[in-house]
Amino acid sequence: MDAMTAILSRRSIRKYTKQAIPDEVVKGLLEAGMSAPSAGNEQPWHFIVIDDRQILDEIPKCQPYSQMLKEAPIAILVCKDDHLEKEIVRGFWVQDCSAATENILIAAQAKGLGAVWIGIYPREDWQIGFRKLLSLPDHVIPFSLISIGYPAEQKPRADRYNVSRIHHNRW
Amino acid sequence: MDAMTAILSRRSIRKYTKQAIPDEVVKGLLEAGMSAPSAGNEQPWHFIVIDDRQILDEIPKCQPYSQMLKEAPIAILVCKDDHLEKEIVRGFWVQDCSAATENILIAAQAKGLGAVWIGIYPREDWQIGFRKLLSLPDHVIPFSLISIGYPAEQKPRADRYNVSRIHHNRW
Repeated sequence: MDAMTAILSRRSIRKYTKQAIPDEVVKGLLEAGMSAPSAGNEQPWHFIVIDDRQILDEIPKCQPYSQMLKEAPIAILVCKDDHLEKEIVRGFWVQDCSAATENILIAAQAKGLGAVWIGIYPREDWQIGFRKLLSLPDHVIPFSLISIGYPAEQKPRADRYNVSRIHHNRW
Repeated sequence: MDAMTAILSRRSIRKYTKQAIPDEVVKGLLEAGMSAPSAGNEQPWHFIVIDDRQILDEIPKCQPYSQMLKEAPIAILVCKDDHLEKEIVRGFWVQDCSAATENILIAAQAKGLGAVWIGIYPREDWQIGFRKLLSLPDHVIPFSLISIGYPAEQKPRADRYNVSRIHHNRW
């Protein structure tokens, strides 16, 4: 799929078939995530690929807007490792992890998968559950979760282009 | 260009030819940015397209790592509008604006352009200069700047795939 089509046609997909995702496809998603730009090229991320049915079923107890995980064959948790953050770009890691998350979403769309970005950070109450469920050490922050599967729902392109949000040279 | 190629081959490009970017190409970049997912679909963004030579030349005084703007034909400032932030997803707007920024970078790569993400937020000292230079109202936060042009430097794909950052089901 060409890049512009993937970007413009991507929608949040929350219903999936039971079809498993091949390992090579998952590897491609992770390559996409790790190809994101990062401040000072710090690459402060880790990725937890979750396909254990029991764990997926527990996740909605950690974050209430993740009920689709009960049907998803796989999810990828994007984490930030405090030990990988460079002092010179302190505070920019949220942007790095967001770029990685968005790359995975676009790659999923390009590969015929459906996916949705589930926010965790900065909600402290949501981070607690993931820390416990996935045995995260203290220096690791659960940032975002991506629910992924072959789509069992189709959504048309959402045209969000809005000229009122465009300015020329000044506000 | 196919989506995976655009994602995997994208590099930070800081040298540009003098070739102007057609308006339709710029519109495509903005469409890509506005197609990003956002928390609760709040779309809290505005985009300032900057092609005024005097303004571009002033920008390195606002953010010291933006010297490439002196050669760039165009830049896009991604801003957040406090008035557009939804209470239920408060604090997630950085992720929304990051996804929009990354979409623009991938779209630029797909269109044969070179681009680089210049961080502004959360550095207060860098935001001040942009506020003044571009007459931003108080409820608008200058978030990131994307320097864009036809590339005058070629960089090979950076293979950042790192298996030590991948975990399976638990940390």
